[in-house]
Amino acid sequence: MITPEKALQIILDSILVLKPEDVHISEILGLVVAKDVFSEENIPPFDNSAMDGFAVRSKDTKEASPKDPVTLILRGEAVAAGDTPEIKLKKQIAMEIMTGAPVPQGADTVIPVEFCKKLGDRVIIYTHYPANMNIRKAGEDIRRDDKVLEKNKIVYPADIGVLASLGMDKISVFPKPNVAILCTGDELVDIKEPLTPGKIRNSNLYSLSAQVEEVGALPLEYGIIKDDPEEIKEKITDALEKVDLIITSGGVSMGEYDYVKKTITEMGADLKFWKIAQRPGLPMAFWILDDKPIFGLPGNPVSVMVCFENYIRPSIFKMMNKKFQPRQIIKAKMAHPIKNKRGRVHFVRVIVYRERDELWVKTTGDQGSGILKSMAKANGILTIPYEKSFIERGEYVEVKMLKPILKTPIPIRIEDF
Amino acid sequence: MITPEKALQIILDSILVLKPEDVHISEILGLVVAKDVFSEENIPPFDNSAMDGFAVRSKDTKEASPKDPVTLILRGEAVAAGDTPEIKLKKQIAMEIMTGAPVPQGADTVIPVEFCKKLGDRVIIYTHYPANMNIRKAGEDIRRDDKVLEKNKIVYPADIGVLASLGMDKISVFPKPNVAILCTGDELVDIKEPLTPGKIRNSNLYSLSAQVEEVGALPLEYGIIKDDPEEIKEKITDALEKVDLIITSGGVSMGEYDYVKKTITEMGADLKFWKIAQRPGLPMAFWILDDKPIFGLPGNPVSVMVCFENYIRPSIFKMMNKKFQPRQIIKAKMAHPIKNKRGRVHFVRVIVYRERDELWVKTTGDQGSGILKSMAKANGILTIPYEKSFIERGEYVEVKMLKPILKTPIPIRIEDF
Repeated sequence: MITPEKALQIILDSILVLKPEDVHISEILGLVVAKDVFSEENIPPFDNSAMDGFAVRSKDTKEASPKDPVTLILRGEAVAAGDTPEIKLKKQIAMEIMTGAPVPQGADTVIPVEFCKKLGDRVIIYTHYPANMNIRKAGEDIRRDDKVLEKNKIVYPADIGVLASLGMDKISVFPKPNVAILCTGDELVDIKEPLTPGKIRNSNLYSLSAQVEEVGALPLEYGIIKDDPEEIKEKITDALEKVDLIITSGGVSMGEYDYVKKTITEMGADLKFWKIAQRPGLPMAFWILDDKPIFGLPGNPVSVMVCFENYIRPSIFKMMNKKFQPRQIIKAKMAHPIKNKRGRVHFVRVIVYRERDELWVKTTGDQGSGILKSMAKANGILTIPYEKSFIERGEYVEVKMLKPILKTPIPIRIEDF
Repeated sequence: MITPEKALQIILDSILVLKPEDVHISEILGLVVAKDVFSEENIPPFDNSAMDGFAVRSKDTKEASPKDPVTLILRGEAVAAGDTPEIKLKKQIAMEIMTGAPVPQGADTVIPVEFCKKLGDRVIIYTHYPANMNIRKAGEDIRRDDKVLEKNKIVYPADIGVLASLGMDKISVFPKPNVAILCTGDELVDIKEPLTPGKIRNSNLYSLSAQVEEVGALPLEYGIIKDDPEEIKEKITDALEKVDLIITSGGVSMGEYDYVKKTITEMGADLKFWKIAQRPGLPMAFWILDDKPIFGLPGNPVSVMVCFENYIRPSIFKMMNKKFQPRQIIKAKMAHPIKNKRGRVHFVRVIVYRERDELWVKTTGDQGSGILKSMAKANGILTIPYEKSFIERGEYVEVKMLKPILKTPIPIRIEDF
């Protein structure tokens, strides 16, 4: 059996970054840029007014003051944003102008409307502005050939605004991986079907789908798949054509009906490993088939979620060429002793809470891998290493946080353990 | 003019939490639960095996050891997950059982397969387990009437798994707000249209849409709206029927063609305020019409994004009944002096970076509200208060982070200021 660290290393070494695609800017938020993007234009494309007011030649208002205003002659209609003024401004002439409107030729400053008074075909101006005030110069934001987005950067809303203003509707990014979810097992029924004896509901489909969504990939939900080699083969073949990564749940233990492991391996997949020295999730398998990763998770709801968190989440980051965002790690004190089975890394679902100005950790109760409640109640995962068989009360431990720390102290009750 | 704090207070006081809706569990990740959810069933619904192995009566294996194994008689087919074993286990009888399969009546423990050897219709057992080992008891995860999800909690993937396992396909949550985006201005053309003189591209639609998406709401993109009261009225009327919140850009200054402010007010909307003592975004307006908030943002790309961040982001959190997640605030040293116009709160786009083991802040260059690059380059926003006209080099300031801190030191170049 390999260790969790070794397993993750094998997985990340086998996984390829997805091929870049040209994607519309409405769909690239949070994705990673695959190629440097250069501007083909100036922004703004023309000198335009930063204020509502009057475009003038600065010289003509040199003497203007509240007590001794200057009167200029108004020409043409008010220039609005979107207009193309054809008049060239001569001496002693002013033109009314709106924010964003092109500054007419000849004008070199804009006097804000609050310092002016319009009177018929004249305007009285009560202040002076030097040249080049209140004007946004062509190219002052972005110049032609400026690099506006750098390869390997994550796209934020302002970047999308910049691309739109440059007329770029598509850029090359590393796309969101499509992820197939195949839940196997004759015991599974869909959530709205009646629960006959011996059956359980297929919760893995929904929790995995949410985990895939949370990390920014696109889940493709396959229904329930029977413990039948033919059906497994057919669905895997179908998924290989449609997606970038396949997750199965169930069918990887040592039981007689565990067909997933056998079937996928017989399809020619390269089994990179089977079994990790961990709890939960020991019988996890991992293959590469047609260059695509296949994660064979055990069927237990908690194993599925913990294996996703530890192995598939970093894999999806890599496929998107995204720097892996590790969860926040906090240091806190163990609120009670805890035992571990030597030789296995134990991922314990815990609650981290604040009490008497200190951070404490307690488990969420029974850690059976079927007990999904232990995962739903947890805000963090405590990793007990391999060689450690006991953690004492009061000992400091490190916890990987999945949710915020509980602010209100929660009384520790003995029945929680 | 009101202050930014007062403006936010007026907005949040006027905005209502959305009405809860029953939403399918595939669509509730990250939303807030509107009603306590109680289990109607036991999970697991029946005692089932936690291992692949042999179901036995614990007593019958009491003496078993590697040196002195016990042989039991095998009955029936191996019980797989999903089966319903009809045999009741008698003395000295064992049944092969798979993980997840119902434990047959009479059996009280499961011996893992690695301690057993199957020989025809017998099984040799090399160890003893006390009663109730390797069995997941009915209801041990969740009991009928347990509260499984609490009102006002955010939904995480494990919660979705729990709901699925309980057969609940819909629960009551505060839904994602639908947000209409109306960009007004005769100067606007869509991003793929040719840029004729005097025109600029409608970048606000795309940056706003990305901001709406980032905060978890659903953007509804209206095209470009002309500076025409009739068209503005028609689109606002349409949006009021379809969405929960309306954002307009442009048309709220004092210019002659600024029809948005006039038109919406004339439609009977309750104008809560117009103008905030801030830079950028001074002429922002805010109305309530038919109980729905309308944000009238200025047309400048940076004003739009900063106003969204400061006023609309917290509003959307409130509508979703989500505890507001403020951005991370960090303390850093000003890398250069900076001036402010008194009487306005100035939201300066800055870069926070690490150098010589300290955090430093510099502006992203020209802070004109048309310069979207200043926003795209920024990783934080520095708020210079009202009364402050100058920040010295080396002075400590607080910055609201929009993106991670730059790790690699960036040389400070004089042309950046």
